[in-house]
Amino acid sequence: YTTNFNGSSAIVVLTMDRLLFITDFRYLETVETSQASAAACPALELRVVDGSYDATLARVLAELSAEPGQLAGFEAAHMSVSRHGWLATALGAAASAMTLRATEGIVERARSIKDAYELEALREGGRRLSDVARAAFGEVRVGRTEREVALAIDWHIRRGGFERIAFETIVASGPNGALPHARPTERKFIESDLVVLDFGGVYDSYCVDLTRTVAVGAASHRAREVHDAVRRAHDRAIASVRAGQSRFAVDEAARAALGEAGMAEAFGHGTGHGLGLEVHEDPRIVRRRPDADLRDEHLAPGMVFTIEPGAYFPGWGGVRIEDDVALTDRGAELLTDVTTELLEL
Amino acid sequence: YTTNFNGSSAIVVLTMDRLLFITDFRYLETVETSQASAAACPALELRVVDGSYDATLARVLAELSAEPGQLAGFEAAHMSVSRHGWLATALGAAASAMTLRATEGIVERARSIKDAYELEALREGGRRLSDVARAAFGEVRVGRTEREVALAIDWHIRRGGFERIAFETIVASGPNGALPHARPTERKFIESDLVVLDFGGVYDSYCVDLTRTVAVGAASHRAREVHDAVRRAHDRAIASVRAGQSRFAVDEAARAALGEAGMAEAFGHGTGHGLGLEVHEDPRIVRRRPDADLRDEHLAPGMVFTIEPGAYFPGWGGVRIEDDVALTDRGAELLTDVTTELLEL
Repeated sequence: YTTNFNGSSAIVVLTMDRLLFITDFRYLETVETSQASAAACPALELRVVDGSYDATLARVLAELSAEPGQLAGFEAAHMSVSRHGWLATALGAAASAMTLRATEGIVERARSIKDAYELEALREGGRRLSDVARAAFGEVRVGRTEREVALAIDWHIRRGGFERIAFETIVASGPNGALPHARPTERKFIESDLVVLDFGGVYDSYCVDLTRTVAVGAASHRAREVHDAVRRAHDRAIASVRAGQSRFAVDEAARAALGEAGMAEAFGHGTGHGLGLEVHEDPRIVRRRPDADLRDEHLAPGMVFTIEPGAYFPGWGGVRIEDDVALTDRGAELLTDVTTELLEL
Repeated sequence: YTTNFNGSSAIVVLTMDRLLFITDFRYLETVETSQASAAACPALELRVVDGSYDATLARVLAELSAEPGQLAGFEAAHMSVSRHGWLATALGAAASAMTLRATEGIVERARSIKDAYELEALREGGRRLSDVARAAFGEVRVGRTEREVALAIDWHIRRGGFERIAFETIVASGPNGALPHARPTERKFIESDLVVLDFGGVYDSYCVDLTRTVAVGAASHRAREVHDAVRRAHDRAIASVRAGQSRFAVDEAARAALGEAGMAEAFGHGTGHGLGLEVHEDPRIVRRRPDADLRDEHLAPGMVFTIEPGAYFPGWGGVRIEDDVALTDRGAELLTDVTTELLEL
């Protein structure tokens, strides 16, 4: 996010006016190519790993340290106790030792507000993922297995211009639909099954995510009832999205709709999650809990997140409907655009 | 590894005679299904998250704590500074407080020695991945792009019965081959290109990994020279594998062969890495460094790892040849079985 580097190993050290970037041999050409492109990070000063990442980082910090007791913040949620212990020892040995201080969510909070470039990538991703959904509907028929359909969806995602799938595609049919995070099995679709199709793609580094639940042939009365309730929850949550709104209130809008249908207990997960470089990031659209962290409670323009209520009944199955929403100065904008009616395929 | 659970969120607490397993709502059916199957973990006591994982863990530890000052080890390389701080505070508030103590690599060390079931999964994975390699050769021809061939390889992996790809498939042609971790681009293959094909699959939860470098049409004299040197390094490293051998010595065998060809500088990464539930795990077959951790220096029966020397020349390209090796009581056993000759496709 701070450098446009997309390899898997690097450390960034930021001061008020410098950006030091530590990576190893394997990524030097990637960095050089990127720095010669439009995606270049202007301030980047490259330091190549010598020995280990930890030892190199300790040297960089020692070099930056102007006076004893200077503070170096670190991302406490992303640094292991093991690396922290090593680094504190290595720094303590230097004459002008820096003091490490835990910080949380500084980059994540910045990331939760998307700029125009990011919004455009997410819009294009949403359009393409909606096309994938329509192609996925064509894959559902009696006799096909969950695994076959998942494989076909992954193929459509890649052919649709995505870099990769954003997470393992979920195809959960009949009773398997009761598991929100089901993995595709060899189960064959039978007449009247509900099938949860949940998939995502990474487009220009940004993740989009979509779920539809469809019927194989004619849907049962109960299937319609559950689908209707989840669809109302989905619509009401989206209708509640506006700048300044509490993210807990958006969750509550979905939860209340399911409650009215007597399905409150069947909705065991949160209503949504932020989308960006990661498929799960801030803001989290979840239930307010007694110990809830109230920082960043309110939705703000530039936020992009899913709305994905569901209802799950062990032994019977489940329904989930998920769209991606961008909150802009003009209000909520749906990035995914596929019918939410219950399709009988 | 300790429970056969394959969801993405859980905490295990082990005592001398109990295994407490903490997970949340989303995975309850997965756990129940698994516990009713042959993969059941006999001692598993399920605790469902109430509030947050951290709060639930603190309650479980308080419940297990018989007397003040009892020790609870934690995986320091896998616990963030942030969670550790929270947990230490929560535990400190309890009357019979447990003391947290950092541990490293306890599970990883156990995992580095595969049992008969794991070896059989890795053997079957290696056989299937060798078939994928032969299918991949058929995808290489003038005019195709790296991305097209990567997509085709991923398809062969999934059709070959793998659960998923083990990492993002590398197809690096011509000068792009100089990046050991290249990502597939829209570059089209041209006559005489060398193409690095590096891919892996997850079979029954276990990762296998294979690389071949092939020529598009006739290979140049220089391409042959580099390929020959890397192939010698590959063969010599494999020949050096035996129980009790230093893992650094296996790396040195590959490095010496490249040195004799004047290509020592062109080999910037380690010779191999362990394979198992993760695609990179112990043992690491790397260069001995002054600050090397000498624990687990020696190879032992049950270890499974890659041998993958390479030579990389910025602006020109690169060659890598990778096979998977199991060390058993009968010596080194190749799990992958595909010609290492330079194919001209």
